[in-house]
Amino acid sequence: MSNEMNYAKMSPAEVRALIRKQEITCPTTGMCDGYAQGNLVILPKALAWDFLLYCQRNPRPCPLLEVIDAGSREFAEFAPGSDVATDLPKYRVYEHGELTGEYTDVSKFFEQRDDLVSFLIGCSFSFESALLEADVPVRQIEEGVNVPMYDTNVPCRSAGVFHGNMVVSMRPIPYRQVSTAVAITAAMPRVHGAPLQIGFPEAIGIKDIAHPDYGDPVTIKEGEVPVFWPCGVTPQNAVMRSKPDFCITHAPGHMFISDIKNVSLKY
Amino acid sequence: MSNEMNYAKMSPAEVRALIRKQEITCPTTGMCDGYAQGNLVILPKALAWDFLLYCQRNPRPCPLLEVIDAGSREFAEFAPGSDVATDLPKYRVYEHGELTGEYTDVSKFFEQRDDLVSFLIGCSFSFESALLEADVPVRQIEEGVNVPMYDTNVPCRSAGVFHGNMVVSMRPIPYRQVSTAVAITAAMPRVHGAPLQIGFPEAIGIKDIAHPDYGDPVTIKEGEVPVFWPCGVTPQNAVMRSKPDFCITHAPGHMFISDIKNVSLKY
Repeated sequence: MSNEMNYAKMSPAEVRALIRKQEITCPTTGMCDGYAQGNLVILPKALAWDFLLYCQRNPRPCPLLEVIDAGSREFAEFAPGSDVATDLPKYRVYEHGELTGEYTDVSKFFEQRDDLVSFLIGCSFSFESALLEADVPVRQIEEGVNVPMYDTNVPCRSAGVFHGNMVVSMRPIPYRQVSTAVAITAAMPRVHGAPLQIGFPEAIGIKDIAHPDYGDPVTIKEGEVPVFWPCGVTPQNAVMRSKPDFCITHAPGHMFISDIKNVSLKY
Repeated sequence: MSNEMNYAKMSPAEVRALIRKQEITCPTTGMCDGYAQGNLVILPKALAWDFLLYCQRNPRPCPLLEVIDAGSREFAEFAPGSDVATDLPKYRVYEHGELTGEYTDVSKFFEQRDDLVSFLIGCSFSFESALLEADVPVRQIEEGVNVPMYDTNVPCRSAGVFHGNMVVSMRPIPYRQVSTAVAITAAMPRVHGAPLQIGFPEAIGIKDIAHPDYGDPVTIKEGEVPVFWPCGVTPQNAVMRSKPDFCITHAPGHMFISDIKNVSLKY
């Protein structure tokens, strides 16, 4: 098993086992075709109430898939038998808001303290897979770059220490496919749902579409409309802004691969 | 304003004002046509994490509409200007799992302690209104009784002190309208969503459909199928079973009337 083509056809449990053995340490893009991947946020229990409330109040940018008990390491609903401390290829650890290290295994932190609460958050990979199946183009995949993301002037609802404006990702959609793209993603509220804005970036405070605040610019072709979806960077920013004393996240692109198929997230 | 017909056409803010003045102390059924009503659970902060997690893990029986900060009394998203301590016509207070009183105003409890967290939970009134609009019959309304509800053998996911099996409500649906009823309610996940079971009560552990565990029996006519939806009694039972030191709920049928229309809960 030496290339991504093979990983695409493997089961989530097989790939997680290889990640656990550190035989896979690269980004998970394209692995386990059809299965939902998720963003990871791990916070001490003392901050978990605020964060759970923040996600409850902002389900579009922060679609919670599963939250496990303090100290537990298994996403029992989305991936029975999984170990959140070893089954992602790369983690980032932050202390007081500063990145203090990247790890391929964060077991030692769960051994040092028993108050860590793990949050699995839905990811746009899932709806992009649904768009592609309907032949709606996903430009940043075509161009092999990161999706362009923008800060907006749309405030999230605050919860305790967590606050901030929504971040959106943008995909240019051909005129005749905009309704299709809306209908497909609206049916998947557990992975960000319908677009926040269609065609008028200035209406949500985006001044220069050619210069995204995160990720890479992509080509908008003649006859295409920029469409903006709530983005998972929103909760990540809210967490970083609060400078939590301790926090673990996935490293960008190094996601948790669940046993749940993307199509199941419609129900 | 002396009868329910008038209340049906009034705005939620108008009705809440009358409730606040204790000019309305009766059940809210039929009031403010088209607007979502919700169940209320108020718990001390010490239990709120477990309960929020329980709802997050069991969104079908426990569809959270809004959760407000400890000590706050306003459902700012669902009803700006509302006061959760005065705007329901009747409350029940439980101490250590025992009903210790019914009240038309619970302000004094918010004055005595600052740690009360209020949860607004979606209610089947909302999807029943959508069913009726599509000419799908709602039997218990026709017969003027409470909806029949049953204990099942379907376990909820536990969270801390909260656990138990799902409770379902039953509506008999004519054969030719079952798909319509499923499609309509599946599109409203914030108010219980699609049925849990269609036509085979024994498959979820219901032995005697003529004798519901809660509410009243209703007539199942020739050519009708019993259809079972996740029910809001589920979280209520989980709370009572845990015997919380302190808890406030709405009195049965005396709900919180929000400013959000039922149809908006589809999005």
